[in-house]
Amino acid sequence: MTTAAIRYADPDATLAALTDVISLQLAHRSVRKFQPRDVTDDELTALIAAAQSAPTSSNLQPWSVVAVRDPDRKARLAALAGHQAFIVQAPLFLVWVADLGRARRLADRAGTALGAADYLETTVIGFVDTALAAQNAVVAAASLGLGTVFVGGIRNHPEEVAAELGLPAHTVATFGLAVGRPDPTEHAGVKPRLPQDAVLHRERYDADAADKHIAAYDERLTAYNTRFGLTGDWSGRVLERLRGPEAMAGRHRLRQVLERLGLPSR
Amino acid sequence: MTTAAIRYADPDATLAALTDVISLQLAHRSVRKFQPRDVTDDELTALIAAAQSAPTSSNLQPWSVVAVRDPDRKARLAALAGHQAFIVQAPLFLVWVADLGRARRLADRAGTALGAADYLETTVIGFVDTALAAQNAVVAAASLGLGTVFVGGIRNHPEEVAAELGLPAHTVATFGLAVGRPDPTEHAGVKPRLPQDAVLHRERYDADAADKHIAAYDERLTAYNTRFGLTGDWSGRVLERLRGPEAMAGRHRLRQVLERLGLPSR
Repeated sequence: MTTAAIRYADPDATLAALTDVISLQLAHRSVRKFQPRDVTDDELTALIAAAQSAPTSSNLQPWSVVAVRDPDRKARLAALAGHQAFIVQAPLFLVWVADLGRARRLADRAGTALGAADYLETTVIGFVDTALAAQNAVVAAASLGLGTVFVGGIRNHPEEVAAELGLPAHTVATFGLAVGRPDPTEHAGVKPRLPQDAVLHRERYDADAADKHIAAYDERLTAYNTRFGLTGDWSGRVLERLRGPEAMAGRHRLRQVLERLGLPSR
Repeated sequence: MTTAAIRYADPDATLAALTDVISLQLAHRSVRKFQPRDVTDDELTALIAAAQSAPTSSNLQPWSVVAVRDPDRKARLAALAGHQAFIVQAPLFLVWVADLGRARRLADRAGTALGAADYLETTVIGFVDTALAAQNAVVAAASLGLGTVFVGGIRNHPEEVAAELGLPAHTVATFGLAVGRPDPTEHAGVKPRLPQDAVLHRERYDADAADKHIAAYDERLTAYNTRFGLTGDWSGRVLERLRGPEAMAGRHRLRQVLERLGLPSR
């Protein structure tokens, strides 16, 4: 099977334009079991340099990252993020921070207003630019033989995470990223994605044409899940995950929490 | 000069852990001048496969992308996004869409509620996962010899963009991405970023220690800007860009616009 066939769980999927980089990207999987060997400072430096090389709106660079290696701190963060044991096991846990605090402090020192930072648009720029940076780190990590997994659970308790990491006002932990050498005994695979025709539109969005491809994907994902002892198709899992605030692990409060952290959604 | 030295405009910046992928990432620059040659369908397929291979929260895959090649449509989108001529010149313009519409349609067909989609948290997941995907496309493009530039201006008029692209309810155009072969005559460079010590913290965020590095960066960016006929340092440009809603090209209305597009920020 080619990397494209595995990515789409479709033996007919092929890519005619392929580079080593794209092959590396296609082979991505979440890693949740790590070898004990440390991630070196040189590797960390390279991950952050790659992250900083991602595009950023108007060169604002509205993010920071906290590198956590202390086992006790990792354990406390794991408890806040839904008791995910791999956070403690990973030698390095990166907490990516949407950071309007740096600009707010500049404005304070200059004695000027920073009115745009009161608007949801600016918080969105913070989240988006943090994500662009972090994804570059994920790909850089893969090229170094490191595995990663994002931890959205870091948004379950943003205020407690802020206290743990000493985050200043006008910043919020966006997501975590566990980093380490993959343990080859992990029973995990490359999760198949929606057929490309379900997400790619030409000139105009065509919902009917796109949604027709979901049924085939549901079959493929059911087969994939069965291999790993899981049940359910994609549609059912999406509906379950988004059914209501009670399934959001506290994250339905995000807007109120952001307000208290100094990131209002005007 | 090494790629790290160029990235940081600091002759002393070096990377001890370096791969071909990281070198490619470090050399990233925005491309705003393109050769007329088309981006092939094979290349487009590869970019989207790379994008789909990025991580996504709970495998929700809450994004879509509209590939625009029609010159008239590109011209109309360029007008909506602040009259940026390179959008028309680029052979391919990708509009990345945060898409809760697919899940909403699944829920409608199943006759179930999708209460989580009313919350800002879910919209944030849409924006973040769209960004992770798009950044993978950017790196994939670079590996194919293609240049790119993000266009946040697509959020200046989200409702008009939605009409132009036929976007369904519960979706929003997050940003555009112009794609094409770089015109080697473009006078542009690799924009230096903040020193790594300004954005990377160990164990806990230390604002005083980090902000100390901004002065050196202001000097480096002033020198860089001068090379391209621009004035001002980084701090001044950040304060100018974020000074207030009047400098946001209409994007201060984002929360209200999202509400009308079916993405409420509860």
